[in-house]
Amino acid sequence: MSGLTPAQARFLGELFPGDGFTAVPEETCAFGADASRLFEAPWAVVRPESEEQVVRLMAWAQEEGMPLFPRARGTNVVGACVPRGGGVVVSTLRMNRILEIDAQDFVAVVQPGVVTADLQKELDRHGLMYPPDPASVRISTIGGNVATCAGGMRAVKYGVTRDYVLGVRAVLPGGRVLYTGGRNHKNVVGLDLARLFVGSEGTLGLLTEITLKLLPKPEATASVLAGWPDTDGALGAARDIFAAGILPAAMEFMERDVLKAVAKVGEVPWPEGTGAALLLRLDGGRKALAADLDRLEQVVRSASPSFLLRGLGAREEEPLWEVRRLINPASFKVAPDKLSDDITVPRSKVRNAVDGIRKIATEAGLTVLVFGHLGDGNLHVNVMHDKAAGEGDRALQVKSQVVELVLSLGGTMSGEHGVGLTKYAHLGKQLSPLESEIMHYIKKVFDFKGILNPGKGY
Amino acid sequence: MSGLTPAQARFLGELFPGDGFTAVPEETCAFGADASRLFEAPWAVVRPESEEQVVRLMAWAQEEGMPLFPRARGTNVVGACVPRGGGVVVSTLRMNRILEIDAQDFVAVVQPGVVTADLQKELDRHGLMYPPDPASVRISTIGGNVATCAGGMRAVKYGVTRDYVLGVRAVLPGGRVLYTGGRNHKNVVGLDLARLFVGSEGTLGLLTEITLKLLPKPEATASVLAGWPDTDGALGAARDIFAAGILPAAMEFMERDVLKAVAKVGEVPWPEGTGAALLLRLDGGRKALAADLDRLEQVVRSASPSFLLRGLGAREEEPLWEVRRLINPASFKVAPDKLSDDITVPRSKVRNAVDGIRKIATEAGLTVLVFGHLGDGNLHVNVMHDKAAGEGDRALQVKSQVVELVLSLGGTMSGEHGVGLTKYAHLGKQLSPLESEIMHYIKKVFDFKGILNPGKGY
Ligand SMILES: Cc1cc2nc3c(=O)[nH]c(=O)nc-3n(C[C@H](O)[C@H](O)[C@H](O)COP(=O)(O)OP(=O)(O)OC[C@H]3O[C@@H](n4cnc5c(N)ncnc54)[C@H](O)[C@@H]3O)c2cc1C
Ligand SMILES: Cc1cc2nc3c(=O)[nH]c(=O)nc-3n(C[C@H](O)[C@H](O)[C@H](O)COP(=O)(O)OP(=O)(O)OC[C@H]3O[C@@H](n4cnc5c(N)ncnc54)[C@H](O)[C@@H]3O)c2cc1C
Repeated sequence: MSGLTPAQARFLGELFPGDGFTAVPEETCAFGADASRLFEAPWAVVRPESEEQVVRLMAWAQEEGMPLFPRARGTNVVGACVPRGGGVVVSTLRMNRILEIDAQDFVAVVQPGVVTADLQKELDRHGLMYPPDPASVRISTIGGNVATCAGGMRAVKYGVTRDYVLGVRAVLPGGRVLYTGGRNHKNVVGLDLARLFVGSEGTLGLLTEITLKLLPKPEATASVLAGWPDTDGALGAARDIFAAGILPAAMEFMERDVLKAVAKVGEVPWPEGTGAALLLRLDGGRKALAADLDRLEQVVRSASPSFLLRGLGAREEEPLWEVRRLINPASFKVAPDKLSDDITVPRSKVRNAVDGIRKIATEAGLTVLVFGHLGDGNLHVNVMHDKAAGEGDRALQVKSQVVELVLSLGGTMSGEHGVGLTKYAHLGKQLSPLESEIMHYIKKVFDFKGILNPGKGY
Repeated sequence: MSGLTPAQARFLGELFPGDGFTAVPEETCAFGADASRLFEAPWAVVRPESEEQVVRLMAWAQEEGMPLFPRARGTNVVGACVPRGGGVVVSTLRMNRILEIDAQDFVAVVQPGVVTADLQKELDRHGLMYPPDPASVRISTIGGNVATCAGGMRAVKYGVTRDYVLGVRAVLPGGRVLYTGGRNHKNVVGLDLARLFVGSEGTLGLLTEITLKLLPKPEATASVLAGWPDTDGALGAARDIFAAGILPAAMEFMERDVLKAVAKVGEVPWPEGTGAALLLRLDGGRKALAADLDRLEQVVRSASPSFLLRGLGAREEEPLWEVRRLINPASFKVAPDKLSDDITVPRSKVRNAVDGIRKIATEAGLTVLVFGHLGDGNLHVNVMHDKAAGEGDRALQVKSQVVELVLSLGGTMSGEHGVGLTKYAHLGKQLSPLESEIMHYIKKVFDFKGILNPGKGY
């Protein structure tokens, strides 16, 4: 049933008393899948509450050659915490304390299992901001965000998780504790190990503490939603915005089929025939923002939108953003199943990507929804299909074709979701043999037996 | 004379024809020092013009076990390109072409020897911005900036060099070419090798091409210069600014002795007895900026400055910034010699750092000038002294004491200048044995013979 020997199970049971350890399939099975919907039954699940437990676990695992799979909320969509090949899942969710928020140093020190929105709410009360805002902010953790280098809507202005990680504590296979980086906003002493952990998908060490850089929270926000008959209109406006020297805090793009889908589930502000829309946000001082919003509106109007709505302050902006939130429910009106992808292309290639994806979709007879973070060329590509109607394979094929297209455009197969298991097979199309070789040697420096989240990421 | 065998000299002479190779001491000696003023005579200097030459050089050097020392403009202040122990200096200054500026993709692709200000001037004409702005922007290169993770005044808002490096090409010892990262603004495929090169002080590979992320250039800037009787006044105002949700594009701090020194070489706007000053810059849309400037002024005024000057737009701001530029010439009126340091502490510890440094200075009977990037807790510490009067050793001792102080405050011995040779002896006080061990193993992955810039950085 379980791949553990009785002695191994006994060891874990003693190290993680009570419900800190389980090998009961009914209990472990929920830890075998993540948002990728891949599944493999864990041999056991442990729930450390302290770094000391993690240290003993890692020392033991290295001796035993026991695979360990760090797991937080399991919202990653690439199978990055599925225990493929078997082993012990290490849930970080009981290490979920915010250890410190320092409004002078502008840092937060947190345990990895803190849900990102919980931290943000707490920071809000201090007038502080932690910019990374993945759409999964309410259901994912800082540890998971760091391990995947999560992005979000604010990345165009504020960057991604990597840009806010100042220091990490990580327990390495074998049980040694690495504390690297720190709480200084600037630090160039030695190789940048802290940031090497960012995006490493749990393959180098188990993060037990993370120190984040914070920013002052801007006084207010403002938004514009505008649409055009076609993609070119929206992309042209985006270009004009940047050319005017405006760096929005969010620049979201929605393609024709997305707008159509959303129109089916809610009231929408755009005229029929709208083929593409931009959703823009600014932030800053309240008074200045009024001027900035006027300026943004003026730039967008010059690009002849078929409609334009603006909102200054949360209350006015709310209805504009409602549209964005409807995309997820709306997509399931298109088809019951979704294969989602997250690709990035150089910004000038977004047009080619959208056209290419549309062509692939048409040929496959499937609807592919394209939307996302236009500001950084990062698009979400949802291949809608009906598994029950036998469309599963075709959807997978579309996904493959999209990866090929993206790479042919000089893009990357993942902008923010990572590689995990689902993109592993495609890796060789993007990484050179030399890159892979170096990554594997670096992995060996941290984990020479290869027991930590084996088979993921690179 | 030179550590090269005749065969080695012949090989290099053939690979780098004409003045691409020299082993003549009168010519090589200028390549033996950098802004640290440390010196060691190079065995030879080569000046590659192409990556192909670098590839052949690196293949050869690995076979021969020949130490190579990458060098750009030599403006680093830590001895990071001094050929300690002997070897061949590799000047990157003939690889100095801007290969591409793409105003759609918001990337620039450059060779490493491009002077940073030359790139910025070019970008200016395209309405683009590369934010990192070390004070040495006119005399240092992108390659050097990347290898040291250079900072600058805009770091408080825009981050440092690391945050703008999307991709690198590097030739590794042995001659293999690593191209990693790319031109996508977001990319999370595999370990983050591109950023591992940032701040690696030329120890992992020789950079031959760098792809940088760009931002739209803000329409305008505005500045405020204000002073207080003491450090607490200035630091309190800084706190108030952040607490008001304002993230300035620059927040420079000048301590009492700096103000005194500057007053000796130029006309200054502050009343006598001013003990500390802040120099602040905002950027953004022109109209919005007027509102933001009013707001900033209001916040600063609430902190009861003894004077306040404001300027909207480059012409009005110019005289405010003149003060900052006078620091360097002014410091040499204090004493003929300078030992400069660049430390960072958590922002709440700046007060303790300033007090502690003053105490150390008083005890040593030397003037220590403290100023710099308060926004990120990054302070420049210039220990002024007179070598001819036998103060050299005392100055060195002050520098050591400052490092101890900074580390005791949870700071880092380098915020932006790096470790090189000058801080090498202090490394063990900041890095743990485990960190050092991991860094050395990672170094081995890239350079197992240890021929590239040996003895630097970590
Ligand atoms: C509805 C939805 C919306 C989403 N939107 C976004 C988005 O906008 N942007 C974005 O980037 N992603 C998004 N995602 C993907 C996902 O939320 C992110 O990848 C997130 O960072 C995963 O966090 P998690 O806590 O769920 O981690 P998990 O999924 O549990 O784990 C993710 C990875 O982190 C590792 N890990 C977790 N904790 C640790 C630790 N303490 N030490 C070492 N390794 C660890 C795991 O091994 C695994 O490799 C979305 C997902 C969903 C379902
Ligand atoms: C007046 C003055 C002001 C300064 N102000 C600042 C400041 O505000 N902020 C700041 O951060 N620094 C500052 N510095 C320090 C210095 O300018 C920076 O460290 C700068 O990045 C060095 O660039 P360089 O081209 O001179 O490189 P060099 O000094 O020649 O080399 C620096 C390091 O980079 C490596 N290197 C260079 N090119 C390559 C390459 N192609 N591949 C691999 N490795 C390479 C070298 O081996 C060396 O380790 C200042 C220096 C001076 C003299």
